[in-house]
Amino acid sequence: MGRKIIIVGGVAGGATAAARLRRLDEEAEIILLERDEHISFANCGLPYYIGGTIQDRSKLLVTTPEMMKKRSRIDVRVKSEAISVNTKEKSVTIRQNGEDTYEEHYDVLILSPGAKPIRPGIEGIDNPRILSLRNIHDTDQMKSVVDLDTVKEVTVIGGGFIGVEMAEVLTERGLRVTLVEASSHILAPFDDDVVTIAEKEMQDNGVRLLLGDPVTKFNTTDDGGINIFLKSGKSHHADLVVLAIGVAPDTAFLKDSGIELGTKGHILVNEHLQTNCDGVYAVGDAIEIPDFITGRKTAVPLAGPANRQARIAANHIAGMPSSKYDGAQGTSILKIFGLTAASTGSNERTLRRNGVPYHVALVHPGSHAGYYPGAEPLTLKLIYDEQGKVLGAQGLGRDGVDKRIDVIATVIRLKGTIQDLTDLELAYAPPYSSAKDPVNMAGFVAQNDLSGMSPLITLEDIKQRNPEKSILLDVRSVQEYESGHIPNSVNIPLDELRDRLDELDSSKKLLVYCQVGFRGYTAVRILHQNGFNAVNLTGGYKYFKAASFTPDR
Amino acid sequence: MGRKIIIVGGVAGGATAAARLRRLDEEAEIILLERDEHISFANCGLPYYIGGTIQDRSKLLVTTPEMMKKRSRIDVRVKSEAISVNTKEKSVTIRQNGEDTYEEHYDVLILSPGAKPIRPGIEGIDNPRILSLRNIHDTDQMKSVVDLDTVKEVTVIGGGFIGVEMAEVLTERGLRVTLVEASSHILAPFDDDVVTIAEKEMQDNGVRLLLGDPVTKFNTTDDGGINIFLKSGKSHHADLVVLAIGVAPDTAFLKDSGIELGTKGHILVNEHLQTNCDGVYAVGDAIEIPDFITGRKTAVPLAGPANRQARIAANHIAGMPSSKYDGAQGTSILKIFGLTAASTGSNERTLRRNGVPYHVALVHPGSHAGYYPGAEPLTLKLIYDEQGKVLGAQGLGRDGVDKRIDVIATVIRLKGTIQDLTDLELAYAPPYSSAKDPVNMAGFVAQNDLSGMSPLITLEDIKQRNPEKSILLDVRSVQEYESGHIPNSVNIPLDELRDRLDELDSSKKLLVYCQVGFRGYTAVRILHQNGFNAVNLTGGYKYFKAASFTPDR
Repeated sequence: MGRKIIIVGGVAGGATAAARLRRLDEEAEIILLERDEHISFANCGLPYYIGGTIQDRSKLLVTTPEMMKKRSRIDVRVKSEAISVNTKEKSVTIRQNGEDTYEEHYDVLILSPGAKPIRPGIEGIDNPRILSLRNIHDTDQMKSVVDLDTVKEVTVIGGGFIGVEMAEVLTERGLRVTLVEASSHILAPFDDDVVTIAEKEMQDNGVRLLLGDPVTKFNTTDDGGINIFLKSGKSHHADLVVLAIGVAPDTAFLKDSGIELGTKGHILVNEHLQTNCDGVYAVGDAIEIPDFITGRKTAVPLAGPANRQARIAANHIAGMPSSKYDGAQGTSILKIFGLTAASTGSNERTLRRNGVPYHVALVHPGSHAGYYPGAEPLTLKLIYDEQGKVLGAQGLGRDGVDKRIDVIATVIRLKGTIQDLTDLELAYAPPYSSAKDPVNMAGFVAQNDLSGMSPLITLEDIKQRNPEKSILLDVRSVQEYESGHIPNSVNIPLDELRDRLDELDSSKKLLVYCQVGFRGYTAVRILHQNGFNAVNLTGGYKYFKAASFTPDR
Repeated sequence: MGRKIIIVGGVAGGATAAARLRRLDEEAEIILLERDEHISFANCGLPYYIGGTIQDRSKLLVTTPEMMKKRSRIDVRVKSEAISVNTKEKSVTIRQNGEDTYEEHYDVLILSPGAKPIRPGIEGIDNPRILSLRNIHDTDQMKSVVDLDTVKEVTVIGGGFIGVEMAEVLTERGLRVTLVEASSHILAPFDDDVVTIAEKEMQDNGVRLLLGDPVTKFNTTDDGGINIFLKSGKSHHADLVVLAIGVAPDTAFLKDSGIELGTKGHILVNEHLQTNCDGVYAVGDAIEIPDFITGRKTAVPLAGPANRQARIAANHIAGMPSSKYDGAQGTSILKIFGLTAASTGSNERTLRRNGVPYHVALVHPGSHAGYYPGAEPLTLKLIYDEQGKVLGAQGLGRDGVDKRIDVIATVIRLKGTIQDLTDLELAYAPPYSSAKDPVNMAGFVAQNDLSGMSPLITLEDIKQRNPEKSILLDVRSVQEYESGHIPNSVNIPLDELRDRLDELDSSKKLLVYCQVGFRGYTAVRILHQNGFNAVNLTGGYKYFKAASFTPDR
C-alpha cells in the first residue's frame, strides 16, 4: 500500500486531483470526502438547469461515486464532512451522514472545500423564499419554487456572474425579473464605460435593473412572498429572491488547524499549492492566489483555475517538484441573452486601485468581413502599459467575442505586447474574420497611440478637459453630427478638414472624435502634420453613446 | 511636394500600403496603378457572390478610386498596367486603357502585382466554358454562366481553398458539382489522416470527389459543354469547368528590370520587404517569404499576410527602420458546408519534407460543455517537437474550430510550448467551452506524451507495427469492440484491465486504443505501473474511423 491521501471536497478541484493522482500513482490510497451527496457535478450548469436550457438533471452529474470507485479505485465517501483537521497528528475528523464522527489519518491532505454564498445579516433574510445557489440540493430547491405556477416575480440580488445568469434564465422562462445591485454597475470584471452594453441588453430583454441601490430589509408578505426594501426608499414585491452577492471561502472547519488563512478566510498557499502545514495542499475557490497581472494576492472562484490548480498539486504530490502555479488572470465569460461578455486580465478599476499606469484602446470591428452576411459589431477594449505590455481586455458583442478574448488571454499569458497583437496571423476567411482581425485592429490602434502617431483619449479625459484650452472636434459628416453628438463639440467633416484648417485655433488642444475612431485617426494624422496638437477619442461617438446608457427604473 | 511613390497593384497589399503611407506622410505624392477597373475589392468574397450568399455586388467593392482620392489624396489610376520597370532610371512604363503607354518616375516603388490562376497547357483548355477566378471581371463572367438555366453540371478542377469553396457555393446553388483533384487528397494544408473529415463533409453534401486523378484532356461537346478526361481513363461531362489548381506570381513585367525573382517567378525581398533594387519594395501574393516555423522560403498567397506586409513596408518607407516582417505561418480557414476546417503552422507533410522531427497529439473534445445543448465534437491535431515547441495544428468541426486554431496560432507566433497550452486561462462558461478547453486538453495530452506518462502513436505507427512483437489492445467495452474495431486487435475493457493483466504478454509492446484516447491513457498508466511497455493511439478508434473514409466514385 502506498501513501494515504485524503481529499476534502469532491467537486471541480477535488475530483480532478483524485483522478490525476490515481493516474500518477496506482499504489496510493486515495480517499475523497464530500459533504453532500454528489461529487463532480456541473457547477456552472446549475442556472441553466433551473432555467430549462438543460432539461435532463442527470447531465449535471459529470461523474458518480460509483464510476470513480470503479475506474480510478478512489475511496469516495459522500455525506462525509471534514469538521476539523489536526495537522500535528495528520488526521481529519469526519462527520458521516450528519451524525457519527470518526478520524482518518493522512500522509497527504488536499483541501478543496470551495466557497459558499454570502448571506448578509439583513433584516428578514431568513424568509425561506430567499435562496442561494451552490450545489445540486440548492438547485433542486430553487427549481421546485420556480416551477410553481404561483411564482411570477423574481428578484435577483447581486449583479455578478451568477446573478446575471439567473436573471437571464428566469426571464427566458417567462418570469418577471428585477435585478438589484448595490454598486452603480453590474459585473465587476468590466469597466463602467463598457458594462453599459450588458446592462442595456438585460433591459432590452425585459430585466428591470435597480443599480446603486443596496437592500436594507426583506419583509414577508401575506401571500408568502417578499417585499424588498432598498436604500433609496423604494420597495417592490417578489415571489422568490435569488441571493447572489458573492461567495466566501468555506474554511471555518480549519479555524484551529494551524493552517494559515487570509483575512477573509482564504487558505494561503505557495506556488506549489502547499499550505504552511506539512503535507497539506489546497486548491480551488477557497484559496488565495497571485493575480497574474499585478502580482497582488486575490481570489478567483472559477472552475478553470480550480482544475489547473488540482492538476498542479497532484503533480507535485506525485513527485514532480517543478510543478507550480503562477496565478490567475481572471479570464471569464458569460452569455447575456444574445450578447456575449468576456474579459481577461486587469480592468481599469483594478489598475487604478493598484496604482499601475495604463493606456486604453477601444475598437468596434465586425465579427467577420462586413460583406459576408451575419457580421455583428463587437466592442473590444484593450488595456496596456507604456511599454506596450498587454494588461487586460474586455469584449462585448453578439458573435466572435469569446475568440478574441481567448486570443488576447493567450498573449497576456505569454507576456506579449501590442506589437504581438499586430503580428498575430489569425485564421481569416469571410465567414470567420477579416484580413485584419479585430485583435490585430486593437493592436494597430494601440500601436498608433503609443508611437504618438495618434494618441488616444477616453471619455474620462473628455469629462475632465479644460474647455478654455481645448476644442472638441467632431469629424463625422454633417448629417451624422446633426443626428447626435457629444455636447460642446464643433463639426468639420474629415473630407473637408484639409481645406478648413484655418478655422481651428492652433493654440488649443484638439480632442477629435468620429463614429468609431477610424476617421478620427486619419484626422489626427492630418492635424499633426499641419502643426496641431491633436488626440483621438478611442471608440468614437459609438463608445460615448453606449457608455451613456442608464437603465429605466 | 514630397517623395513620389508609385504602387503597382490596387488590391489588398497595394491599397493598404497607399492608405497607410498617406497617414504617415501628408506630403508624399502617391500614385496607385491598377490594371483593372476596380481597386481594393473583396477578393475572398468572390466565390460567395457567385454562389449567392453575398447578393449585393457593390458589397464586393471595399473602397472606390473616388473615395481613395478624396480621403487619402491618392492619385488612383485604374486601367493602368505597369508593363515594365526601369530600376536604373527609376521609372515605370504604364499602359493606359490597353493602348497608350507613358513613363512615370518614382522615388519609391511598391510592387503588389499579386498572383494569377495557373492555366496548364492541357489539350482543349481554351474552351470558353473553362473559367478561373481572380478578379471582379472573372467573377461577373463566371456568375453570368452559372446563372444560365442550361448550366446544371459543374466540374471544379483543384481541391485547394478556392476549389473547395467554389464546389460548396455551387452545390448550394443547386448545381451538380464534381471536384477533380490530381493529388490523393484535397486541401494541402491538412494532413491525409484528418482531411478525410472535410472530404466526407463534401460527399455528404452532394459533391462528387474524384481524387488522385489528374485531368489529361478537355473536349468540347456538341451542346457547348465540356467532357473532362482523367488519367484513370474515366471521363465525364460538365456545362462549366472552374479551374482552380493554384496561382503563380504575376511578375512577367519585371523580367528585364534587374529585380531578383525566385525560380517560380516570386519577387525576392529582405525582412523590410525591400527588393535588391534601390527604392523598390514588394508585398503580397507575388513575393517569397520565410516560413515562420521552418525558416525555409515559401509563398503564402493569403490576404492577412499581404495586409501586414503592406503596413510594414509603408512604415519602413516612412522612416521606421525597425519595421520588419518575420514570415508567415500560413494560418488559414475555410467553411465547407456545416464544417469548419482551419490550420496553422506546419503539417506533418511539410515537416517530413524538411527533415524536422515531431510528435502528434489528436483530441476530439466538445466545442463546449457537453451538458449544455449544442456542443459539437471537434478534431484537433497538434504537432510539436521533442522540446515541446508547438509547430502546427489542424482543426475540423462544426463549432469552435476557428477559436482554437487562433489560440494555437497565437502560441506559435509567440514561440510557445505545449506547457503554455496547458497553462492558458481561456474564457469558460458552459455555452462557450469547458473548464479544460480543447486547447488545454491537447496540451495535457501532448505533455503526457513527452513526459513518458503516456507516449502517443499515430495510425502510421499502427500500420508499421511488427505483429510478432506487439499487441493491439482495444480497451473499450465489449459492445463497442463488437460494433467495430481496428483489425487484429484484442479487447480488454478498461474497467477489467487491472484484473486481467495476466492475459497480456509482457514481452510484447502494447499498442492501446479506446474510442477517443482518454481511456487508453488511463490504461497506459495502469500498464506502465505494472511493468508493461505500452503506448496509446492518439485520437483512438474515432481517429482510425475518420481517417479510413474514402469517397465513392
